[in-house]
Amino acid sequence: MELWYTEKQTPNMGITCKIRQTLRTEKTPYQELAVIDTEQFGPMLVLDGMVMTTQKDEFVYHEMISHVALSTHPDPKNVLVVGGGDGGAIREILKHASVQRAVLAEIDDRVIAASRDFLPEIASGLDDPRVEIAVTDGIAYVKDHPGEFDVILIDSTEPVGPAVGLFAKEFYQDVNKALTPDGIMVAQSESPFFNQDLISGIQKNLGEVFPLVRLYLASIPTYPSGLWSFSLASKTHDPLGVPVESLPKLNTKYYNADLHKACFALPSFVRELID
Amino acid sequence: MELWYTEKQTPNMGITCKIRQTLRTEKTPYQELAVIDTEQFGPMLVLDGMVMTTQKDEFVYHEMISHVALSTHPDPKNVLVVGGGDGGAIREILKHASVQRAVLAEIDDRVIAASRDFLPEIASGLDDPRVEIAVTDGIAYVKDHPGEFDVILIDSTEPVGPAVGLFAKEFYQDVNKALTPDGIMVAQSESPFFNQDLISGIQKNLGEVFPLVRLYLASIPTYPSGLWSFSLASKTHDPLGVPVESLPKLNTKYYNADLHKACFALPSFVRELID
Repeated sequence: MELWYTEKQTPNMGITCKIRQTLRTEKTPYQELAVIDTEQFGPMLVLDGMVMTTQKDEFVYHEMISHVALSTHPDPKNVLVVGGGDGGAIREILKHASVQRAVLAEIDDRVIAASRDFLPEIASGLDDPRVEIAVTDGIAYVKDHPGEFDVILIDSTEPVGPAVGLFAKEFYQDVNKALTPDGIMVAQSESPFFNQDLISGIQKNLGEVFPLVRLYLASIPTYPSGLWSFSLASKTHDPLGVPVESLPKLNTKYYNADLHKACFALPSFVRELID
Repeated sequence: MELWYTEKQTPNMGITCKIRQTLRTEKTPYQELAVIDTEQFGPMLVLDGMVMTTQKDEFVYHEMISHVALSTHPDPKNVLVVGGGDGGAIREILKHASVQRAVLAEIDDRVIAASRDFLPEIASGLDDPRVEIAVTDGIAYVKDHPGEFDVILIDSTEPVGPAVGLFAKEFYQDVNKALTPDGIMVAQSESPFFNQDLISGIQKNLGEVFPLVRLYLASIPTYPSGLWSFSLASKTHDPLGVPVESLPKLNTKYYNADLHKACFALPSFVRELID
């Protein structure tokens, strides 16, 4: 018997993967969680029916949400991840030698548990002594920690369910306050093919809060359309202003010094979303 | 009743699209051809069970297979498309004012007919007086036209069935001969996530025939993994050597002057395929 898992990425299209077995399904206080072992991508974490990460292609998302901001900031010491309970962003953050403290503010500890149990390569950084895990509402956490972080990464689920507030202007204002005077934030901001109004809205909201806002892209096979956007907002440092030769050398599979700037080169139809 | 079309892009994963209706199915002398009208992407051309192009996302592929080479060559007058019976590459080529003659060498005239009938925006350039349609084997056509073309685009199907020969070193040698002394060729070269050995092989074969070989990328939602590669080979001109300000201004939705160079910035795992 062949079993296939199909995610409708929009009402009219989806991705389908052959599965070896279902590793976990549970209803947490916040969402439906599943881990399924797929032939193509290995173990896959699914929340509320949407693929969050997979063993095979997680490196793209986790490297790209982390290294662009962390390589732009000249000396990131304190870093916060809002969401991101799988631990992948934390693992990447720890590759930066300057980092002294990496906080994970994840509302659902069952996501952390699922990652530890079935995606150990992604969760591998969570036991590092520099890491602090706060199982809490990220919105409240950010509000309660003004001026504390050099970089904040919003590693959220889609803007439905528990993550809705993470796309609001009020939240970005709190993030601005939680950042140091030369802080940088990055938020995952969905697909330029399928979520155009959302991207325009996020960029507009950020522009009302931060002096510098940019959009960059990365290719993630298991995310809708395969092309994903990240919105970066900064108080002073510009990722395009960093001399390439001063970018840190990191052990990565996707991010590199060439892409640090090239990922901001937008297709014309994407550029129009943010003009 | 809901009808969904599913393409297994690999044995273990696929894309699935809700369809409005099947517009055409036929067995041509070369392949199984279908045109289906999808909710997400509009009319979709499918050959031997593989999505070739769709109304909604065709602009990425057709712009990116064409404009990188045509904007690199200082004065492309004669251009050949091998395959590409839908006409999309021809439409893009005609945006370059220098072009005097654009030849389409397509083996299967039923592909041309399907595009004219159901994808008229893609086929729109085929009736231009500068266009010459040769319904013939592209391999033979290239062999028979030495020294004739400034740019040759290999707009092939996957390397199964009629297109196998279009990925062989012998064919690249004939393409080299069919080019003028400063000619450039581009071949679609599949997904960096799913076709790594193929990309390495194409780049190696091209490197044995041309002095300059490069790989560039574009994001195409309906192609496997959403990330697609193109292999460019050139006798003299380097796409990375063109001053940005001298790139032609074109009416495009994806390609632009920033991407002309940024599309060559490769993720580290892709760079490793061609080192």
